[in-house]
Amino acid sequence: MRLALKEAEKAAAIDEVPVGAVIVQNGKVIARAHNLKEKKMQSTAHAEMLAIQKASRKLNNYYLDDCDLYVTLEPCMMCTGAIVLSRIRTLYYGTADPKGGCTDTLIQVRNIKRLNHHPNVISGVLQPECAEILSSFFREKRKHPKKNRKPVQPA
Amino acid sequence: MRLALKEAEKAAAIDEVPVGAVIVQNGKVIARAHNLKEKKMQSTAHAEMLAIQKASRKLNNYYLDDCDLYVTLEPCMMCTGAIVLSRIRTLYYGTADPKGGCTDTLIQVRNIKRLNHHPNVISGVLQPECAEILSSFFREKRKHPKKNRKPVQPA
Repeated sequence: MRLALKEAEKAAAIDEVPVGAVIVQNGKVIARAHNLKEKKMQSTAHAEMLAIQKASRKLNNYYLDDCDLYVTLEPCMMCTGAIVLSRIRTLYYGTADPKGGCTDTLIQVRNIKRLNHHPNVISGVLQPECAEILSSFFREKRKHPKKNRKPVQPA
Repeated sequence: MRLALKEAEKAAAIDEVPVGAVIVQNGKVIARAHNLKEKKMQSTAHAEMLAIQKASRKLNNYYLDDCDLYVTLEPCMMCTGAIVLSRIRTLYYGTADPKGGCTDTLIQVRNIKRLNHHPNVISGVLQPECAEILSSFFREKRKHPKKNRKPVQPA
């Protein structure tokens, strides 16, 4: 999770919401990523998605069933779904997401029995640090509201 | 939906589970895609994800709030989440997915009130055709079970 926090710091440094993710296989980090929604202009460019895609490329396998994923924030619906599809063994996350978390908060993935995979879920790993990096990012944003404005992109 | 079915046919032709998606803005098709899980070796390469990514690239915008998505099969958890995140206006889907559908079947996305976007959902569009392309694909697969075997990829 320390490495995932480092990834989150990289996101904050480029003005992205600071979430970081790392995938580990046999004790070795095989993928790391951070949120790149703004830079890529893609709503799908969450840290977990990018890490899963990197790991699959590396292993040339869409199933990551001997891999564990560490992410600083509870995954959203999209990322929880991707974790299920890629058959991640254990998901470790830092802090819960009361607005969009779909592992335990808005949805409890373990209770959707008909899904064909259920990752083990360990929450609250380095929770204070994972929460603080987000809080301080948004605190800073509120201080400089102009920086919040997005340029409107014509089609 | 006819165009989404054409995309699904392209998937079937390359031995991918036949699901196709199309995104429309102001009556114009701006993105079309089909499932490429096997070809890309990515569990995340579903038709809807690829179409959303293409549309965002085209519009240089992660919000697709004046766009509608047509997909032959009810979206899974990942794709439903991506539809919410990208703020697709209306989701039209063909046939329900009893195993993994997370728009209406395993989860009812409209009932998760705390999500910050809820697409309009119209289901059952060209349902018989959308179901039949999947049934005939799997019927064919069962006839030739050897073709089902995936090469195991070493890490």
